[in-house]
Amino acid sequence: MKVSITSGKAEGPTKLNAFDNALLDAGIGDVNLIKVSSILPTGAEIVELPRFPAGKMVNTVLSYVSSDQEGDQLCAVVAVAISDELGCVVEHSGINQDPERVKEEAIDMVKSMMQVRGLEIKDLMVKYQGHRVENQGAAVAAVVYLE
Amino acid sequence: MKVSITSGKAEGPTKLNAFDNALLDAGIGDVNLIKVSSILPTGAEIVELPRFPAGKMVNTVLSYVSSDQEGDQLCAVVAVAISDELGCVVEHSGINQDPERVKEEAIDMVKSMMQVRGLEIKDLMVKYQGHRVENQGAAVAAVVYLE
Amino acid sequence: MKVSITSGKAEGPTKLNAFDNALLDAGIGDVNLIKVSSILPTGAEIVELPRFPAGKMVNTVLSYVSSDQEGDQLCAVVAVAISDELGCVVEHSGINQDPERVKEEAIDMVKSMMQVRGLEIKDLMVKYQGHRVENQGAAVAAVVYLE
Repeated sequence: MKVSITSGKAEGPTKLNAFDNALLDAGIGDVNLIKVSSILPTGAEIVELPRFPAGKMVNTVLSYVSSDQEGDQLCAVVAVAISDELGCVVEHSGINQDPERVKEEAIDMVKSMMQVRGLEIKDLMVKYQGHRVENQGAAVAAVVYLE
Repeated sequence: MKVSITSGKAEGPTKLNAFDNALLDAGIGDVNLIKVSSILPTGAEIVELPRFPAGKMVNTVLSYVSSDQEGDQLCAVVAVAISDELGCVVEHSGINQDPERVKEEAIDMVKSMMQVRGLEIKDLMVKYQGHRVENQGAAVAAVVYLE
Repeated sequence: MKVSITSGKAEGPTKLNAFDNALLDAGIGDVNLIKVSSILPTGAEIVELPRFPAGKMVNTVLSYVSSDQEGDQLCAVVAVAISDELGCVVEHSGINQDPERVKEEAIDMVKSMMQVRGLEIKDLMVKYQGHRVENQGAAVAAVVYLE
């Protein structure tokens, strides 16, 4: 299986539109996202995000955060750990938290998922998306499962 | 892709049963709903809701609201905008809010989704479902993706 | 369609890891769960949980509860009722509630789902999972749809 990692941020006239705009910014705004939990099959390969046909059904691990409080610092993170066998994905987010801390928490969680399965981490990637809210803002980070 | 728009409302002995009964009222109570986000592919066509085989997996954009406060006025809305290219769907809901206002908010949001994508709206539909709670009530509105 | 009923409980260094560990304990930790609503097709058969290939997409009705309060008594329940026609599934959970009461509520809800559809219950199963939280704990109960 191929997967892509992406993220985006945006403002919008409503929270829903800010979310939609953040998905567009991430390159996954024109598809139908189906949320899945967090395991990559053996041999998963991380590739660049493709251009999807409009309306395609796409399985996704999604981290999402939004706010309408001016000045709020949003932060959406996904962390991916890959072994020779399966891989694990964590979604994490925060508002007005130290970005480094949120990233570290995501890394710790995905490391723990691998450790409990007895898997040796060969590759570990973190995608962080920050956004400072002006009116209605959103940030997303996602691991997208491609067929 | 063909899609159907539907809605329903009901009371029930528990919130879960009220929700289930509202899905039955909407004609989607005997299937498995998989929630998806909100993009219709090019050439989407809106058709009458078919009768599904029991237990079928059905991708759905679902607006859902429930309450156990007697007298609460529930309102579930979906708005669908279609262009010559893709279409957008918004789910929205409210409790004790002006139904016209909730409908307008849904329309504004879906218009904004189309505008940000540079799409000209050819057709715009809104499905509104109100319900006044007696004991445990629920209202749903849904856009159902058919194969 | 074949379905399996399972449950699990665990502690973990974070709530997310406790949830992940509870899924592992339930035998569904190495797949991607897609949450669906609650109808079994005609002729559904309950079988033992198989071993899944890592990363498989698996449709699931999931009851999930977690807490970081030491001493909290978690309880996750699924109830399944089967008729000669379709079947219904309820997910239910509680914190610090009488386990018998939570089970009975789940049974009452699934009975009500069957009654409203005019279906005679041929078989009724309840899967209960309790867990007493030490630091970060989670309990899950699930009905897994097999192909």
